[in-house]
Amino acid sequence: MTTVVSAEPDVQPLVVPFGEGDRSMADLLGGKGANLAEMTRLGLPVPHGFVITTEACRDYLRLGHPPVRLEPQLVEQIAVLEHVAGRRLGDPTDPLLVSVRSGARSSMPGMMETVLNVGMTDAVVEALATRRGPRFAWDCYRRLVQMYGRTVLGVDEGRFEERLARARERSGVADDTGLDAHTLRGLTLDFRRILVEESGEDLPQDPQEQVRRAVVAVFDSWNGQRARRYRAHEGIPDDLGTAVSVVEMVYGNAGARSGSGVCFTRDPAGGAPGIYGDYLANAQGEDVVNGSRATLALSGLADLEPECYEGLLRHVHTLENHYGDMCDVEFTIEEGHLWILQTRVGKRSAAAAFRIACDLVDEGHIDMDEALRRVTGPQLQSLLHPRFRAATDDDVIATGLPASPGAAVGEAVFDSGTAEAWGAAGRAVVLVRPETSADDVGGMLASVAVVTARGGLTSHAAVVARGVGRTCVTGVEGLEVDVENGQARWPGGFVLVRGDIISVDGSSGQIHRGRLEVQPSQVAEAVGHAGDPGHVEHSADPLVRAVLRVLAHADLRRTLGVRANAETGPDAVSARGHGAAGIGLCRTEHMLLGARRVLVERLLTSHDRGPTLEAIQKITCDELTGVMEAMDGLPVVVRLLDPPLHEFLPDLVELSVRVAVDEVAGHVDPELVEQLAAVRRWHETNPMLGLRGVRLLSVLPEIIDAQVRGLCEAILALRARGLSPVAEVLVPLVADVAELEAARARIAAAVAFVAAAHEVDLDLPVGVMIELPRAALTAGALARAATFFSFGTNDLTQTTWGISRDDAEGSFLSEYRSCGLVRDDPFETLDQVGVGRLVQCAIAEGRAARPALGLGACGEHAGDPASVRYFADCGLDYVSCSPPRVPVARLEAGRAAVLPAGSAQSAGARSAPVGVPTQ
Amino acid sequence: MTTVVSAEPDVQPLVVPFGEGDRSMADLLGGKGANLAEMTRLGLPVPHGFVITTEACRDYLRLGHPPVRLEPQLVEQIAVLEHVAGRRLGDPTDPLLVSVRSGARSSMPGMMETVLNVGMTDAVVEALATRRGPRFAWDCYRRLVQMYGRTVLGVDEGRFEERLARARERSGVADDTGLDAHTLRGLTLDFRRILVEESGEDLPQDPQEQVRRAVVAVFDSWNGQRARRYRAHEGIPDDLGTAVSVVEMVYGNAGARSGSGVCFTRDPAGGAPGIYGDYLANAQGEDVVNGSRATLALSGLADLEPECYEGLLRHVHTLENHYGDMCDVEFTIEEGHLWILQTRVGKRSAAAAFRIACDLVDEGHIDMDEALRRVTGPQLQSLLHPRFRAATDDDVIATGLPASPGAAVGEAVFDSGTAEAWGAAGRAVVLVRPETSADDVGGMLASVAVVTARGGLTSHAAVVARGVGRTCVTGVEGLEVDVENGQARWPGGFVLVRGDIISVDGSSGQIHRGRLEVQPSQVAEAVGHAGDPGHVEHSADPLVRAVLRVLAHADLRRTLGVRANAETGPDAVSARGHGAAGIGLCRTEHMLLGARRVLVERLLTSHDRGPTLEAIQKITCDELTGVMEAMDGLPVVVRLLDPPLHEFLPDLVELSVRVAVDEVAGHVDPELVEQLAAVRRWHETNPMLGLRGVRLLSVLPEIIDAQVRGLCEAILALRARGLSPVAEVLVPLVADVAELEAARARIAAAVAFVAAAHEVDLDLPVGVMIELPRAALTAGALARAATFFSFGTNDLTQTTWGISRDDAEGSFLSEYRSCGLVRDDPFETLDQVGVGRLVQCAIAEGRAARPALGLGACGEHAGDPASVRYFADCGLDYVSCSPPRVPVARLEAGRAAVLPAGSAQSAGARSAPVGVPTQ
Repeated sequence: MTTVVSAEPDVQPLVVPFGEGDRSMADLLGGKGANLAEMTRLGLPVPHGFVITTEACRDYLRLGHPPVRLEPQLVEQIAVLEHVAGRRLGDPTDPLLVSVRSGARSSMPGMMETVLNVGMTDAVVEALATRRGPRFAWDCYRRLVQMYGRTVLGVDEGRFEERLARARERSGVADDTGLDAHTLRGLTLDFRRILVEESGEDLPQDPQEQVRRAVVAVFDSWNGQRARRYRAHEGIPDDLGTAVSVVEMVYGNAGARSGSGVCFTRDPAGGAPGIYGDYLANAQGEDVVNGSRATLALSGLADLEPECYEGLLRHVHTLENHYGDMCDVEFTIEEGHLWILQTRVGKRSAAAAFRIACDLVDEGHIDMDEALRRVTGPQLQSLLHPRFRAATDDDVIATGLPASPGAAVGEAVFDSGTAEAWGAAGRAVVLVRPETSADDVGGMLASVAVVTARGGLTSHAAVVARGVGRTCVTGVEGLEVDVENGQARWPGGFVLVRGDIISVDGSSGQIHRGRLEVQPSQVAEAVGHAGDPGHVEHSADPLVRAVLRVLAHADLRRTLGVRANAETGPDAVSARGHGAAGIGLCRTEHMLLGARRVLVERLLTSHDRGPTLEAIQKITCDELTGVMEAMDGLPVVVRLLDPPLHEFLPDLVELSVRVAVDEVAGHVDPELVEQLAAVRRWHETNPMLGLRGVRLLSVLPEIIDAQVRGLCEAILALRARGLSPVAEVLVPLVADVAELEAARARIAAAVAFVAAAHEVDLDLPVGVMIELPRAALTAGALARAATFFSFGTNDLTQTTWGISRDDAEGSFLSEYRSCGLVRDDPFETLDQVGVGRLVQCAIAEGRAARPALGLGACGEHAGDPASVRYFADCGLDYVSCSPPRVPVARLEAGRAAVLPAGSAQSAGARSAPVGVPTQ
Repeated sequence: MTTVVSAEPDVQPLVVPFGEGDRSMADLLGGKGANLAEMTRLGLPVPHGFVITTEACRDYLRLGHPPVRLEPQLVEQIAVLEHVAGRRLGDPTDPLLVSVRSGARSSMPGMMETVLNVGMTDAVVEALATRRGPRFAWDCYRRLVQMYGRTVLGVDEGRFEERLARARERSGVADDTGLDAHTLRGLTLDFRRILVEESGEDLPQDPQEQVRRAVVAVFDSWNGQRARRYRAHEGIPDDLGTAVSVVEMVYGNAGARSGSGVCFTRDPAGGAPGIYGDYLANAQGEDVVNGSRATLALSGLADLEPECYEGLLRHVHTLENHYGDMCDVEFTIEEGHLWILQTRVGKRSAAAAFRIACDLVDEGHIDMDEALRRVTGPQLQSLLHPRFRAATDDDVIATGLPASPGAAVGEAVFDSGTAEAWGAAGRAVVLVRPETSADDVGGMLASVAVVTARGGLTSHAAVVARGVGRTCVTGVEGLEVDVENGQARWPGGFVLVRGDIISVDGSSGQIHRGRLEVQPSQVAEAVGHAGDPGHVEHSADPLVRAVLRVLAHADLRRTLGVRANAETGPDAVSARGHGAAGIGLCRTEHMLLGARRVLVERLLTSHDRGPTLEAIQKITCDELTGVMEAMDGLPVVVRLLDPPLHEFLPDLVELSVRVAVDEVAGHVDPELVEQLAAVRRWHETNPMLGLRGVRLLSVLPEIIDAQVRGLCEAILALRARGLSPVAEVLVPLVADVAELEAARARIAAAVAFVAAAHEVDLDLPVGVMIELPRAALTAGALARAATFFSFGTNDLTQTTWGISRDDAEGSFLSEYRSCGLVRDDPFETLDQVGVGRLVQCAIAEGRAARPALGLGACGEHAGDPASVRYFADCGLDYVSCSPPRVPVARLEAGRAAVLPAGSAQSAGARSAPVGVPTQ
């Protein structure tokens, strides 16, 4: 083959024949082109062709016209192609036809244009009719005119479809394959008239001109609306451009000994070994995919075309060996001759990903590190949820946003009080609310699922539900909850009363009336107990074995610890079962929700606080005893009360209305009036920026005493039982080191109080939440006053961006996402550019001030795969997430260790080191 | 004199005789001790003595006992003192008595202890009685026992006072000077019994032991509660310690030819040249200060003791020449002999500071740079307010917090609507409200003063009032405003009805009933017009001349520009008069408050937005025409709408109650229901972190179009009149560069629209507010998309600290300040450690990305003296503050240029450079 000789020899050629490329050149040739080149080099039967590079596309997009050096290279490569194919474009005896296809670096299926049968002209159609029959020839011509019209000239596809429909009707056939040569000829002429009418241009009769125009049309399709939206969604940069492959046409529709098929080298659904695919005789690729005709399993091909089948087996074996991974292949048989048209590493289900990765290890293709790279946290996550065994759409009463996956069945209730009461009685309940607030956390914990009318994927309900592993559907538009009368009206008009059974699918967002059968996840079962002391898993299921094996390898590799967030004994047991190496965040406020809310309310309204504080101390002691018992020997980080106090009080608007209405009616409850005064007193315009966390020290330090004393009592009780509790105290919302020091002094006094009372030694390490920009910016000073940092990146994101999570959803942030102003929700995936910079600043300056400083992260981001990898790269000691997310975090932490450094960095991240202060 | 020989010669002596120190040694000798040493070196008649250094005190505080090497040095220096004084401690013929006084580096008046007449014993008192008479001797002894008891032994002062009172009663005299020798002797013995009763110790009869104990007591007083609180308030570090001076006693109360006085080298009130002070014959220093007897003007001394008077004149002249500044001097005449007991650079009023500084320049003592260093912004500020000519407490009906200084008289009104209506009719009104919100800004602008029942010094009312230069008193506890019935009940029970005249003193916080006469500030008058084009000031008042002269020098020196915040033509005229070099912040939302609020409300509720948007465009055009006309040729920065939209809507709670009550009553106004729905729709849990600023682009971009078009129309109208408007557009609340780019595109389109309609060229520079941490952290990217930054440090402080300014006052932040957890309110004085670091990061990375980037700061901090100096040190181009604060900002910007670098740095600031990103 001839190498392209460019006018400037140091310039990369813009057109590369298959024989001169390889799979490493996907940047230049696109994924499809690079793989075609690779197969050509491997000697596989690939049709002849060449690729116009992405560089040519980029030049075109920049210049507004094709670069001048493209034309001579294109002419030359067409000549080469004609030479090796032994046929020429426009040849009136044995004409060459080509396909012109897009092919970017990253697959963008269906987003860009393709033109087939390029090279067909009035002269060629006659030649082809002679060689392959008139119907075939005119069908090819009709298709070219139609595709060229739409793609190159921008003619509305509807105009062609309308003619086709009329022709089918007139011929009395159901699909286009029933149209005869005469009709197709008429349609072709008709279509060409449409071209001229709509665009003023006919199909050029010069085949080379057809190629040129088709190439430009494919370039243009890079910037089509569909393609741009897809890229925005997938995070593919806009400036890469697409390559264009020009390939000799082969025909699977050339008769009974022809056909097209798709072949996977392994089962892409379950991952089982052995090829897997479909074949359709006398058909082109589209026909296999679109399902208009029943396909044959691949084994059927062995009978039809044994030689081709053998060839196919041989070739896919070559490919799998060569790529070291499961591949998928598109092939065509033209009159008994096998052609491989495309290959790539095959897409697969989550289950298949785990199974195939382990099988490839066993077969010696890859090692366990590579297996770990080939599975993802979201894949593991998807294997952990139960599903409904059989669900039809008939019983769907509403569809909302899939806020927290899973499948759950229970009795509908409409207030958290009922949820807690029924839940405590052992009933499975689904909490259905207009929306949820901190008040509802107790009710949510008591429920198997949560459904809300308002709120999006990052609403309170969604966040809490994901955090505690409850199935959740939010944003059910039109759902009206009538709490007082105990009923809910669903969007379609269906009314549910309290106690009616519903089934909630958190993966699809569908709500079903009645009870669907739930199929638990065997994987969840296995990974949920793998961390139990003494537990040994003997599963016969190859998927379960594969998941556990990969997870074990992740544990071996990772340097990032994984802890869980938990506030109760059972949650801590679950956390340990999931493999958590401690509790990274125990939110003491969760112990004071629900029925216990009244305790805090009493603190805020009553003068005699003694008994209430004692009750809080007792509750804290009891709950923490359970948590630390489950985590025996492992660290438990207990965070002091964090939320604003008025979260424990009734809603200001509701209470104001109630009191005002009572006043009008002349029967005022003085207790309510007093309560309203308290609510007003504690009301804040911006509670997120208000009296919370360590700031409570200034108004209600006794609550901190009660919490710390409760913790100390729990430690001593467990020690007395021979256990080894390991507790640390975490101070939230610190902005200045003076606050931390004041809190430390108060904590130390409370510890000393209990130690003295029991005549024992007791010392609790104190850490600080880094959840305000100022904390990160003064990390050096904080590190000198704390033994560890815990990054609260939820709050840190709120203040760094100035976005309230309570309000963001359904507001500008979703608008931003839909118009591409932000790619990732910063509350879901850590914003590395802004928030990440503060995190790195705090790490650098904290460790500089105290080399042994402990570093952890808790909250939503700690369970997000990309963020976990980022935290690992940052050098944190541990992340802490909800128990069900622990396996995912373990997996991603392992992947961070085996993936190339910096791979966790987000596309837009331009994070910079922050200078170390000269303190 | 002998030099102390220490055991270790390289160690600094702990005791320094006056003759061996000088004024540069204030760190070691304290301010008082260093000045006594200096005067000794100058040959002034200072009593003999020595100083125990601050190092000795620090050693004592660290060790818990005096350092061992102190005792021999003390003994030696006492011997030296006895030698030079010619008298010995405890000598039964001619005894030496000494005073033992505290004296820290920074003056802490009255915060630490003093013991006088040390050396008095049973033997000495007899000797002294013989030499000076028994009454004098026993009075000295009585004083020593009392002071020693209180200071050294910690006896309650009340026990002595009670005996003294009884003795006065028994003797039938009004004050202690009436007590005779016999009575004083009895009291002395009595007091000694009290010492033994209370502490188990009597007064030691060894004079050296008295000295030792007194020194330790003074050391201890460094850590007394009063002293600690004072230091926390003044920002004096706790680890400096105090020096102790031991000085030979001299007696102004030794008869008719004795006396004590205070002398200032110039008038400390008005600054006029010539000595100024008081003298009291036969009296000690305390008697002059406490005002129990009528003093003589200093000129009277010329007649009484002409020789001493001449000496005094000579000595203070020496001191002023030597110190190059006005000094104050305490002196005593003992039997015709003049002693100088103390001197320091004298405290002075704001007026005197300016006048003295300029006079010293004219007299050749200092240059103008030094004069500029010697005055402060707060001093200038205090000269700008009008005062009430004569105010008594009789007519005071309430006292609140002095939130914005000034003196104003007007008719009381209780709602902003009335304030606006009456104000528009030319009536002077005082707006009295429970508290204010954004709704009240129109009313506040129409008023001469604002009074609120709730809120502190950084409440909405206080901040806005200071911003627009209105007198304001907040936090009037017990004030009840009954808006509906048009009356207010004041704390004392006094009821005011609408239209009643009140006088508000914003400097004292007092509210007077009726009309007080207001004395305008001549300085304000002068500096408020100095910037008017063509204005030349010819004032006969030396103060006015001095202020203008110093300000002119500040303008000459400063590199930091000063602009003003203004939204109306008159405000812009005032800004220019005050010397503003442009408008740095024009808040367009201020144009849409008051009666115009309904426009925004209509936008949020109605479907046909066209006419409303046109009205907004028209208003914007009209107001900006006025502003730009006043600022002709100078830049005007117009900020797009910033606040959350619901600020333009009624209050949710109030409206909910109203609708609910109406519902109960059965007459529901459908319009109100609709309004409530709109309020609910726009309601946010944390509005400060919500849908504001650039984010409005995602829901209501048309409002930005209307504002920009209005601005463009104004520019074109002014150009048509031959003027030169210079406008820039400022985009608020940007967190990500994508938002800025979207806003820029929208602004450019609106500009292009108007330009096309008028067929002219028009181009507006676009800048970005840096008011979120993320903006500062991504400043490089923002700088590439904006031509200037404007730091909104109010908002930046809110998010960096996570403190809502709406809620902070009266909550934990005031609690923090009162217990010393924070020293400066970060909303008043820029927090250099945290917020300042973000500012510096943004400056460094912004200028790296765009060297010509403009840099300004607007908001509260831009008018705070320390913050202005900090901004100047950071290298900003300009600050922008309210018009009345412009002169203060000019002065402080000038001071920043002549003060040593880094002097603006706050005590706690450990700001570090932030790495430049590798973008």
